[in-house]
Amino acid sequence: MAKSPETEHPVEVFGWAARDSSGHLSPFKFSRRANGERDVQFKVLYCGICHSDLHSIKNDWGFTLYPTVPGHEIVGVVTKVGSKVEKVKVGDKVGMGALGASCRNCEMCCQDLEAYCSEKVFTHGSIDKHGEPTQGGFCDLMVADEHFLFCWPENLPMDAGAPLLCAGITTYSSMRYFGLDKPGIHVGIVGLGGLGHLAVKFARAFGAKVTVISTSASKRQEAITKLGADAFLVSSNPEQMQAAASTMDGILDTVSANHPIVHLINLVKPLGKFILLGLPEKPPELPIFPIIMGRKTIAGSANGGLEEIQQMINFAAEHNILAEVEVIPIDYVNTAMERLEKGDIKYRFVVDIGNSLKSA
Amino acid sequence: MAKSPETEHPVEVFGWAARDSSGHLSPFKFSRRANGERDVQFKVLYCGICHSDLHSIKNDWGFTLYPTVPGHEIVGVVTKVGSKVEKVKVGDKVGMGALGASCRNCEMCCQDLEAYCSEKVFTHGSIDKHGEPTQGGFCDLMVADEHFLFCWPENLPMDAGAPLLCAGITTYSSMRYFGLDKPGIHVGIVGLGGLGHLAVKFARAFGAKVTVISTSASKRQEAITKLGADAFLVSSNPEQMQAAASTMDGILDTVSANHPIVHLINLVKPLGKFILLGLPEKPPELPIFPIIMGRKTIAGSANGGLEEIQQMINFAAEHNILAEVEVIPIDYVNTAMERLEKGDIKYRFVVDIGNSLKSA
Repeated sequence: MAKSPETEHPVEVFGWAARDSSGHLSPFKFSRRANGERDVQFKVLYCGICHSDLHSIKNDWGFTLYPTVPGHEIVGVVTKVGSKVEKVKVGDKVGMGALGASCRNCEMCCQDLEAYCSEKVFTHGSIDKHGEPTQGGFCDLMVADEHFLFCWPENLPMDAGAPLLCAGITTYSSMRYFGLDKPGIHVGIVGLGGLGHLAVKFARAFGAKVTVISTSASKRQEAITKLGADAFLVSSNPEQMQAAASTMDGILDTVSANHPIVHLINLVKPLGKFILLGLPEKPPELPIFPIIMGRKTIAGSANGGLEEIQQMINFAAEHNILAEVEVIPIDYVNTAMERLEKGDIKYRFVVDIGNSLKSA
Repeated sequence: MAKSPETEHPVEVFGWAARDSSGHLSPFKFSRRANGERDVQFKVLYCGICHSDLHSIKNDWGFTLYPTVPGHEIVGVVTKVGSKVEKVKVGDKVGMGALGASCRNCEMCCQDLEAYCSEKVFTHGSIDKHGEPTQGGFCDLMVADEHFLFCWPENLPMDAGAPLLCAGITTYSSMRYFGLDKPGIHVGIVGLGGLGHLAVKFARAFGAKVTVISTSASKRQEAITKLGADAFLVSSNPEQMQAAASTMDGILDTVSANHPIVHLINLVKPLGKFILLGLPEKPPELPIFPIIMGRKTIAGSANGGLEEIQQMINFAAEHNILAEVEVIPIDYVNTAMERLEKGDIKYRFVVDIGNSLKSA
């Protein structure tokens, strides 16, 4: 079904792709569609590395199409606009996240919930409406409908801001949607990685009391002094966990590794919410007794809608919310993936595409 | 800690109790507290048999205190009222459900959510504030604070109405709380037992489109012609399940037996809700991928609040919603429990206490 993008499309692109489930990334030439009347071409300057990029290049979920160019926390500068583009002009800074297209017509799309459209096309790893695999932001040039791009505020750094486009919106949108964005409520954040550290910052900006819950006692100081959490719990410490039982209005569980959740559910008050944001390979047990007896909610949440992502970007610019990043050149990306797999990053890698990606 | 109610209390009561995890019920004399100023004594006329009575007498959940008198779908007639009782007078019909007491002071109690009060005392199987085990409605006389009693409408039959007090409110309250009570929405009901058949009736009365989902194709006709469901799905039929994928706004899962839920979650639309009401002994796997990708909610729900139970009773009387019951004498109760365990009941046993319970 898939045509060869090298021959079918006029726009030559150079990036880095994984060819097989080793996940090893290496230089890759491909092409993108000609600019349509509502399309925008932009030069990629920075692209964050999300944990789902790692799952994707290694085919952990079983549906990766090789070769695949990952990357969906993309910031760049507009180089060309179609005749009907209204949102941006050449030279503007833009962002692009995980979503590359949707039907624009369904119940979800009409409510600014494009991420839940049944015909959504992800920025990479999907098949687009022409039957071709989509390729992400580890490359020099993107082409996208303007609806799926965001205006980038002048005062928002592009490198440390890039992770807002997936890690940021995933945490922001879940708190907004599930009512965990109210001043004075108590929110728990499980896991202090790419998502978790931004969740702490957004929850603080919403005025919540924030408790970080981690397996690793060594993260206490950083959680409190650097990220601004109010409290810290070591999840393997039964006394600490018991003392905090039924104290939280909601929890965001950002952990992608396999883990049980029963002891975490117990931290949530009756009527409280436990929101899963990470995608472990193995499903945990669903603790029925505590959720029935406490009328508790377990829910999942992916990205927000397009309008909401723009709101989040503007909110981050206003409240000075940025990811803690380690900026790397593209030729460090395989090492970065290995380190990400081990959790050896505080808290997000961002590839400096603009200064390091050079065609051979 | 527990005193002997035979010697401590002045109000002699005769009922049927289980003495051990065989669950066998037999005649049992005990006593209840003297009537306080806000207490009501009432003669029990009917008491429904809930699946949790069966779990309780067999100690399936591991916390049964023997001897135990089950029963928490209780309807009777007031025989004595305390000096400050305002809600009822001698001769009035009253109902009593699963909740016997709560703190009346906490965040939950103040929102009419007494069922989620951390100090709640169940009608049977709990320890009350005096340190004594509570005993349920398989007996001739109850004593309860008027706050935990409901006024019984004149036109509502006592036998077929009794199951409203647990099975009814559990389904009604979950639909009200989780927004599944709107006309025109599509609600799935998994399992067609005591809870399930009342869930169909309430959902229809709310104006929802109702699909019953069952393992047993033989229930189709009764679900549609007798109970008024709009559609019926056999959960073991992959074609039927696939055709119904993502069509339901919410599902109530009323099944108490162990069962997987992944194929049921797929029936729910994005942003939809899957509400667990049954309490299987073994927790199912939590299907993370579909709930994150569809921003779906899995939640649990127990009883509603006291005010809400009265509203539900009034709603049932107005809409002529009654359980389908098999009325039995007390000396049939052990056979009824065996039949309940096998699912051999359409759809609820109700014990005719008033006419069959005779002290030896």
